[in-house]
Amino acid sequence: METLGIDIGGTKIAGGICDEEGNIRCLQRVPTPEDAADINAIVADIYRRCKDEGDIKSIGISAAGNIASDRRTVSFAANLPAWNQYPLADAIEDLIGDGVKVVVENDANAAGWGEYRFGAGRDSRDMIMITVGTGVGGAIIVNGQLVRGAFGMAGEIGHVIMVPDGEACGCGLFGCAEQYASGSALERFAWSAARRQPNQSKHLLEACDYDRSKLIGPMVRDAAQEGDPTATEAFDRLGDWLGRLMADLSAVLDPDTFVIGGGVAEVGDMLLGPAATAFNRYLQASMYRQHASILPAKAGGEAGIIGAADLARID
Amino acid sequence: METLGIDIGGTKIAGGICDEEGNIRCLQRVPTPEDAADINAIVADIYRRCKDEGDIKSIGISAAGNIASDRRTVSFAANLPAWNQYPLADAIEDLIGDGVKVVVENDANAAGWGEYRFGAGRDSRDMIMITVGTGVGGAIIVNGQLVRGAFGMAGEIGHVIMVPDGEACGCGLFGCAEQYASGSALERFAWSAARRQPNQSKHLLEACDYDRSKLIGPMVRDAAQEGDPTATEAFDRLGDWLGRLMADLSAVLDPDTFVIGGGVAEVGDMLLGPAATAFNRYLQASMYRQHASILPAKAGGEAGIIGAADLARID
Amino acid sequence: METLGIDIGGTKIAGGICDEEGNIRCLQRVPTPEDAADINAIVADIYRRCKDEGDIKSIGISAAGNIASDRRTVSFAANLPAWNQYPLADAIEDLIGDGVKVVVENDANAAGWGEYRFGAGRDSRDMIMITVGTGVGGAIIVNGQLVRGAFGMAGEIGHVIMVPDGEACGCGLFGCAEQYASGSALERFAWSAARRQPNQSKHLLEACDYDRSKLIGPMVRDAAQEGDPTATEAFDRLGDWLGRLMADLSAVLDPDTFVIGGGVAEVGDMLLGPAATAFNRYLQASMYRQHASILPAKAGGEAGIIGAADLARID
Amino acid sequence: METLGIDIGGTKIAGGICDEEGNIRCLQRVPTPEDAADINAIVADIYRRCKDEGDIKSIGISAAGNIASDRRTVSFAANLPAWNQYPLADAIEDLIGDGVKVVVENDANAAGWGEYRFGAGRDSRDMIMITVGTGVGGAIIVNGQLVRGAFGMAGEIGHVIMVPDGEACGCGLFGCAEQYASGSALERFAWSAARRQPNQSKHLLEACDYDRSKLIGPMVRDAAQEGDPTATEAFDRLGDWLGRLMADLSAVLDPDTFVIGGGVAEVGDMLLGPAATAFNRYLQASMYRQHASILPAKAGGEAGIIGAADLARID
Repeated sequence: METLGIDIGGTKIAGGICDEEGNIRCLQRVPTPEDAADINAIVADIYRRCKDEGDIKSIGISAAGNIASDRRTVSFAANLPAWNQYPLADAIEDLIGDGVKVVVENDANAAGWGEYRFGAGRDSRDMIMITVGTGVGGAIIVNGQLVRGAFGMAGEIGHVIMVPDGEACGCGLFGCAEQYASGSALERFAWSAARRQPNQSKHLLEACDYDRSKLIGPMVRDAAQEGDPTATEAFDRLGDWLGRLMADLSAVLDPDTFVIGGGVAEVGDMLLGPAATAFNRYLQASMYRQHASILPAKAGGEAGIIGAADLARID
Repeated sequence: METLGIDIGGTKIAGGICDEEGNIRCLQRVPTPEDAADINAIVADIYRRCKDEGDIKSIGISAAGNIASDRRTVSFAANLPAWNQYPLADAIEDLIGDGVKVVVENDANAAGWGEYRFGAGRDSRDMIMITVGTGVGGAIIVNGQLVRGAFGMAGEIGHVIMVPDGEACGCGLFGCAEQYASGSALERFAWSAARRQPNQSKHLLEACDYDRSKLIGPMVRDAAQEGDPTATEAFDRLGDWLGRLMADLSAVLDPDTFVIGGGVAEVGDMLLGPAATAFNRYLQASMYRQHASILPAKAGGEAGIIGAADLARID
Repeated sequence: METLGIDIGGTKIAGGICDEEGNIRCLQRVPTPEDAADINAIVADIYRRCKDEGDIKSIGISAAGNIASDRRTVSFAANLPAWNQYPLADAIEDLIGDGVKVVVENDANAAGWGEYRFGAGRDSRDMIMITVGTGVGGAIIVNGQLVRGAFGMAGEIGHVIMVPDGEACGCGLFGCAEQYASGSALERFAWSAARRQPNQSKHLLEACDYDRSKLIGPMVRDAAQEGDPTATEAFDRLGDWLGRLMADLSAVLDPDTFVIGGGVAEVGDMLLGPAATAFNRYLQASMYRQHASILPAKAGGEAGIIGAADLARID
Repeated sequence: METLGIDIGGTKIAGGICDEEGNIRCLQRVPTPEDAADINAIVADIYRRCKDEGDIKSIGISAAGNIASDRRTVSFAANLPAWNQYPLADAIEDLIGDGVKVVVENDANAAGWGEYRFGAGRDSRDMIMITVGTGVGGAIIVNGQLVRGAFGMAGEIGHVIMVPDGEACGCGLFGCAEQYASGSALERFAWSAARRQPNQSKHLLEACDYDRSKLIGPMVRDAAQEGDPTATEAFDRLGDWLGRLMADLSAVLDPDTFVIGGGVAEVGDMLLGPAATAFNRYLQASMYRQHASILPAKAGGEAGIIGAADLARID
């Protein structure tokens, strides 16, 4: 059975027809407008362009927001105020007609499911995906099922508190994982190290023009690859916290696989190496148990599309 | 269908025939011997005494240890060295014969399942049981299924690290939840407060004869009930950490219900009150989401028997 | 003996003739120029205007920077790059001539000494002044002597690390006292609380136009005085950390008096109340020892002038 | 001028005549009795045996306890209940007669002063001694003067709180330096590491017979010297916390020298190496300032005798 998968992201909306193997046909990409109705119109338009190419019975939508347990309503979306208690599936179904059913998933969950079904987690049964981007996202699969939580909020692993009274988080709490295991954390670690050892950090400091507000993750990556010790230290530190987070999650869920995705994780071993060391260091009874595999994500930027499409198919 | 549920605890082995409503008949209690073979013999003996009272096709065993994912082998039991990689189900099936099937569950999981099916979690679908005893145990139900983890180690929530470089844990890590949200933590909090304010803590200090090694949880409970401010402070502090742990778990799993059991939790609101306050305080987006219920355990000391029996029935 | 005291601040240079009772005559105020030579010229000009009013043998300068142990050279000034290893006393003495001797002191030390000699610490012998402004400054008096440290860096109490891996500090370390007991911390605490409980924080949120970058300390003060519970909570939290810092300093130095100054401390009991509670809570052996007094600063904005003038007199 | 120095320790009382170069003659050693009067008698007896060997005008006593600011009264001694508000100097002067004056100093202060005057701190002016024994002791010299504090409690650096909600301290607080930078901490670190990696820790585990209560510091030292990686890790961790403590103290006092004494510090570089690394890592503005020297103690077990004797001379 084929379904349409559509990923509504902050900058672009992308979607296409997905088959049961995770292949995409008829892929479309459109910049994301600011208005909810305009977004719906684009989704409907993608549907119209694709519908003659396959037999589409349902549409899976990946959306950046908290999704109610009906899988139809967006409860809250930090970046799109109009999506406050917004009946997204109803709105799109009304617009499209045709009896096509719409299912909405949280974007992290959709991408995690895409990795689980068609990517790095393909051989897994109990998988946790951690997305290391500007923030920290998560998706949890237990016994082959996506865990959405009783109220649709499961997988918000970026808000596990790792350091009591630690770094202030945008959510109003202090010490959230998101402040220690994210790309923002990488920038903070790098800047702090550079500030203390400017002579060893010239590559990085020149790249950002000695201006904290211009320092971005890719500069840290480049500096580390050039051998800048403060940048390397920043990745070590980031990996350490990522490993601690995985150890905490293993205490709770004992998965067989962690899949690490997100832009920051593209550096590969520079992050996953220290993360694995720390995972081993902070895992309870690490000598006496089997360890989860720690794998880089594989499905790439289209994981959300194929994950949403697949979730629309199976449910 | 009826099954036999047997709970092999550190001091006693208890079991009986359980029906599908969580009722027990023919309940037996025997002190726990030290030898593995003697334990098996007692289990077989309980079976023999009960078998004419019902139509027992399978036996569910609740055992204090890590259980392999085959649900037949004990990987490791801290208090019974002979149970290292021990094929408990095989041994008991061989001894009993009759074609009766044996299923082994971790004791926290069995008790959590008992609460989920027949106790405080009866109306729940996504439930976490937290057992506040000497240590901190956990059982996790997601979407109506017990989460055992890929390697049988899920639910070890006592080893989520809450304070980096915090109190040393028996497991060799530092700052585990078990050191902050357990009965041992209660004793430590109470002693510390009493040491700093002995004049306000006479009740407690006299109860333990001014000797740290004699101070036990029930003394703190009694002192708090008598109005000793340092004992009350100890419960407040314990509740605070319990609430933080629940907030962390909600970030990961977003359950609809927490069931709080274990000997320390029998004080009720003295613990659950401050725990609820802290849960609210440390829960991400607490103003914008539905909150899990926090309920005291109800199935009591037999939760493990009825939980193990039920798990043997349904799988 | 009379001396001239001059406080070179970030926005204005102020100075006048100080007698041995801490009285100022002939007070001058001039905006601070950006250039080092222009600053020197202003100091010389203040001297010329005052010299006929008294018999000035020496000038004490309070300067915002690290002062070398010769008390003549500015090693480093964060806000005035030209003052890097700058021989400030030499430059001013050359400009003035007349055989007048110039002595340079760190601004926090000068203000602390002013409080010690003529303000809240007048009856003290072992005093610590804590300045709660944008950052946290300190001045330490032991046995009636100002403690400058072997290399002129004593009293940097804002960089005691209070939370390992805590909030990133501008200095490149993590978890410095400056991030927990300062006006910046107050803003962060208030914003975090408001973000989690916007309905209880309308006064504050409206004051800053719901914009974090517009939120400043006086808004938190006003909101707290209007009864906004999140603003009150922010002051409680700030006071708690200030009390902890005092407890740490008492473990090291056991002073008889803490004097709390800086703009944030002008709220008085709203800050000093919770600070005293926490001091008592975190002070080692608090039941068995005499406690330092905790007093609000009294000498006001001219503490630096009279302190610098007095230090120039006695040495 | 010669004075008698006497160190009243937990297991022995030792004393002799000290000259102005820190040399001891007529050294006596006697086991410490349990009774206060018996202790006084021994001190008087040491005086009688020494008095013909020199011209003794005063006696300096080093005592393990909190000494009131009169330097005559023991306020509190954890290990000798009879010394609660005990007028030690009066009692000894009455017993001896002869017009000999007695001065009492806290033992850590006496030993620190001994190091300052005749040992590793001889070239220093601003020195901090840190004693790493079962606990953590301190002595502070500022500008050539011993800092006793307003109420005689200065130098209790073991109770600076380094980890909020950290390891419970015997004093009733949590996270004190004493729990992270002491010999007890070394044992805890070593046991925790061994527990997690028993295969790499055989030397240590065999030495203590796999029994936590038998594990003592010298076993960790021996194991580290044999190359046991968990023992080495324990020293690294201890050194890390010691370095952090020194960085905190430098922020407050900016000394020119740290002298590290106590039984644990006898391992030398195994502790001082990682301590220096961490000091550099956690010192504010470490690139832009002069650093204190970190030196091993030199005056040995008699530092308390010569320090107490010297303090009796100069005051």
